[in-house]
This record gives sequence, C-alpha cells and structure tokens, in this order.
Amino acid sequence: MRLDLAYDGTDFSGWAWQRGSGLRTVQGVLEAALALVLRLPEAPRTTCSGRTDAGVHARGQVAHLDLDPDLVARTDAADLLRRLNGVLPRDVRVHSVSVAPPGFDARFSPTSRIYRYRICDRPEHLDPLRRHEVVLTRSPLSVAAMNQAAAPLVGLHDFGAFCRRREGATTIRTLIRLGFSRTHDGLVVGTVEADAFCHSMVRSLVGALIDVGDGRREPDWLAARLAAGERVPDIHVAPAAGLTLEQVMFPPDAELAARADSTRRSRERVTRRPEAGSGG
Amino acid sequence: MRLDLAYDGTDFSGWAWQRGSGLRTVQGVLEAALALVLRLPEAPRTTCSGRTDAGVHARGQVAHLDLDPDLVARTDAADLLRRLNGVLPRDVRVHSVSVAPPGFDARFSPTSRIYRYRICDRPEHLDPLRRHEVVLTRSPLSVAAMNQAAAPLVGLHDFGAFCRRREGATTIRTLIRLGFSRTHDGLVVGTVEADAFCHSMVRSLVGALIDVGDGRREPDWLAARLAAGERVPDIHVAPAAGLTLEQVMFPPDAELAARADSTRRSRERVTRRPEAGSGG
Repeated sequence: MRLDLAYDGTDFSGWAWQRGSGLRTVQGVLEAALALVLRLPEAPRTTCSGRTDAGVHARGQVAHLDLDPDLVARTDAADLLRRLNGVLPRDVRVHSVSVAPPGFDARFSPTSRIYRYRICDRPEHLDPLRRHEVVLTRSPLSVAAMNQAAAPLVGLHDFGAFCRRREGATTIRTLIRLGFSRTHDGLVVGTVEADAFCHSMVRSLVGALIDVGDGRREPDWLAARLAAGERVPDIHVAPAAGLTLEQVMFPPDAELAARADSTRRSRERVTRRPEAGSGG
Repeated sequence: MRLDLAYDGTDFSGWAWQRGSGLRTVQGVLEAALALVLRLPEAPRTTCSGRTDAGVHARGQVAHLDLDPDLVARTDAADLLRRLNGVLPRDVRVHSVSVAPPGFDARFSPTSRIYRYRICDRPEHLDPLRRHEVVLTRSPLSVAAMNQAAAPLVGLHDFGAFCRRREGATTIRTLIRLGFSRTHDGLVVGTVEADAFCHSMVRSLVGALIDVGDGRREPDWLAARLAAGERVPDIHVAPAAGLTLEQVMFPPDAELAARADSTRRSRERVTRRPEAGSGG
C-alpha cells in the first residue's frame, strides 16, 4: 500500500525509527497507528521516499508497506484513511491511502525529490504563525549571489563535499534544480530537486549558499568546493527547521518496476561494500 | 508612536492585559518589552486596533502608545524595532515602528478591520505545519450555502444577535465584507471586514455559517436571527484558533483626527451609560 503523508517535524527525532532509543519518530508513530487500526500483532515496517532528519518537515512524504494480500483485499482505503487520522497525533496527517501499483517502491521508484528551504533575513518580517518552518538569518541575503553560486552545481556531480560520507555509499547525484527566490511576504525560499539526496546534502548546500548570500563567501566558492570533492568543516549545515520535503516525483505506473531496478543497480555499481546499503 | 505587529495567539490569553491575573497576554508581553528597551520605570500603556480574544492570532495588529516628546525625539525607530524584536518572544514580532501622524488613534482612527477564518473540512487535508491557525470541522462544508447565508448580513445592521451584549455599548456595525472561498490547498477561508466588531461577533457569525455550510441550518436562518436581534444560545461561537486579524485600514493622514472624533461620537450617541466605554 502507498501512503501520502505530511508532518511538522518540530517534535520528532526525524523519520527513522531507532530501536530501543525511546525517541519519538514519524516512522514509529505511523507504524504504531497502522498496527492499531489494522489490528496487527506487531507494527508493520514502512519504507519512505525521504528519510528526513530530526526537525525536518514534510508536506509530500510518500511511504509504502507490504501487507498480506488477504488483508489488503478486505481493507477499504477510505475507511483506513479516516481511522488512521483518527488515531494519529495532529502533527502527522496521512493525506491518502491507496493500493500501490505493481513495482511501486517508495525508496527506489521515485525519479526525484523536491525540498524547500524557507529563510527570513529580516527578523522584523518573521510571521510568528510560520516560525516553526522558517529560519532566521542574522544578515540580509542577496538572492542574486545565491543563484549565481548555485547554478554550476546543477547536473550530475559527486556531491561528496556536501555530504556526510558513509562507507560503501556513493555520493554521485543528479541535481535537477537549485534556486532561490524572494516571495511576496519577504521570505527567501530555496527549491532543491535531485534524483536523490545523500545525508545532510540539502542542508549543507543551503548552509553554504547562505554564506554566499550574506557576503561571507564569494559565489564561485561553492563550485570550487564541489570540484575539491572532500567534505570540509567550513561548510555550515543549515538548521533543520527551515527544511520541508514538499513533493516526491514518480514515473508512470508502467515504468515503476524498471525505475526501481535501475536505481538499485546504479547505487550498487559504485558500492564497495554492498551490504552497507544504498545511499538513502 | 505606531507599532505594527503580529502574533501567534496559541499561547496567549488574548490581547488585553488583565491586572493581577498573572495571565500571559500580548499587551502584557509587549508593554514589558517596551519598558525594558526604552528604559522606562513603568510599562507604558498601549492601545490596539483589535482586542483579540484568547487564542486568536494577528498578522496586521496595530497599536499606539503615547510617549514623552523628548523621548520620541531621541529614539531612532529602526533601532527601537531591532531591540524590541531582540527581547520579544518568537510568537510576537513587531513589523514596524514609526512616529504616528497627528490625530492617529489605533482604536478610533481605523476605517475597518479585516479578519480571516481558516477551516479544514476534510481531516486528511490538514497541513500539520498550519494546524495552529486552522480549525477542523466534522463534516464537509458547502461554500455556496455559506455565501448565500452571508450576503444579507452585509451592510449597516444591529448585530446584537451575534454579540455578547455589554451594558451601554452599541451593537450597530457596518459589515463591509463577509464571504468564503475554497483555496487551492482545500481550505475554506472566510474574510470578514467591518468598521468595527463587537465582542465575539466574528466567531459567532462564522459559527452560525459553519452550521449552514454543513447542512444543519438553512441559509436564510442567519438573516432571520439578525432580524430577531437578541442573542440566542443556539449560535455556536467558532473556535479561536481559526481566527486571525489580518489587516487594519486607516484613512489618509489628513483625515485621522476627524475619523477618530466621528467614531467616538457615533459610539457615544447610542450609549446609555457613556462611562462604560465605547464598544471596542
């Protein structure tokens, strides 16, 4: 089954359930609600499209779970949706529940993920009602300089300079979109789209671009960092609260399985230790 | 001086400071911040355009305060703005500070106040990041029926049926706008504009219109209640969390004093006990 969901990440220790930690995670809360509503003896495992970090929000998260075909056949999706939202806390909402088409995999089928990062660069402009999803900067930002710095990063690159490197996982990604604009209410909003993201990649890119926007770095600094390849400690990771997973893009149903296979292969091809997983 | 400000009303017991209550109010927090930043021995009194109830939000609240002319002369508005936001909690932001033009009165000069009321009528559509400013209804709403019911209320009427009546205060108001629309994200948003509002008037109107929208009442029920004139217990007051004071409209500077005089007179004309105040 496919679930489309949204959450306010403020009070969550990220998406991923952490065994024995006692931490409140979106996955933990969602799986407990599914077990309750489906009357399962133990929580079913869910897999998501974007494993958001602690404090990161989502408006368009997608997850799948494998259920016994008999249970799927006797489950009414609209009824499951209503009952799930009835037991979930108000900071998580499931927007839709459906039987996933054959070959659907929330992690490997997507063609891209779209994140937005919201910045307020004038403390007096902050809308108090939106403060949980907007990050304040100390200095005004130049959107033009940020976009100048961002442009050379679009395309297929090794983003090792902007990722926490994990043994056996590739850091090669296709960045489809990276741009900032100023909205009518004075916010600076960045849109970042890629086939997939490595750990902390969006927030490292945004952190580096904020350093360009406020004049601490020259616009060509990012392209130089990308070319150098190695992660350096002078790249700030922007705060989690500004980041929201907005949308996950999937190919047409007929291509879901092929896309999942090709994603799995491309991640494995460059993996030195295949058992360590495939990027995330 | 004129202050333009915004707040998330969730954790406030409304605008108005309540002597000795110990309650956290916007006025109390703002006046304490002003005293601190202006180094005043006691908190200055502020007057606002819309005395919002507990839990009601504001994006476009306006307030004035009278200060010693010497203090005004040696105060830099930009500096005061920066320092105020430095000491205020994050659920209140002052958007601007300026020397008010002659005749300016936050309570009596406005020509109108604009409120918005945000409703989500499908629990699965609720955006968890906006849950503090949106109210859930149990049933889907008919926007057409709500607008049909609202139309006859626009104009100059005695809104006694929709107000908590206070001895000596008129309940005659000019309702300039009352309409609902469905936004692209599925919310039902009501816009209510009037020269001024009586206590609980917006939320009583919205509560009655929700009863029409979900089919519990016929559209002509509101006009009949208005004509009957007396407040009846079968009108629900809609929850505070959905309501936001969005904007306060003022006349051109040259007309501020005349407008304030005429507002004061019109409130007094129908007042049986003038000492009881003028509506608010």
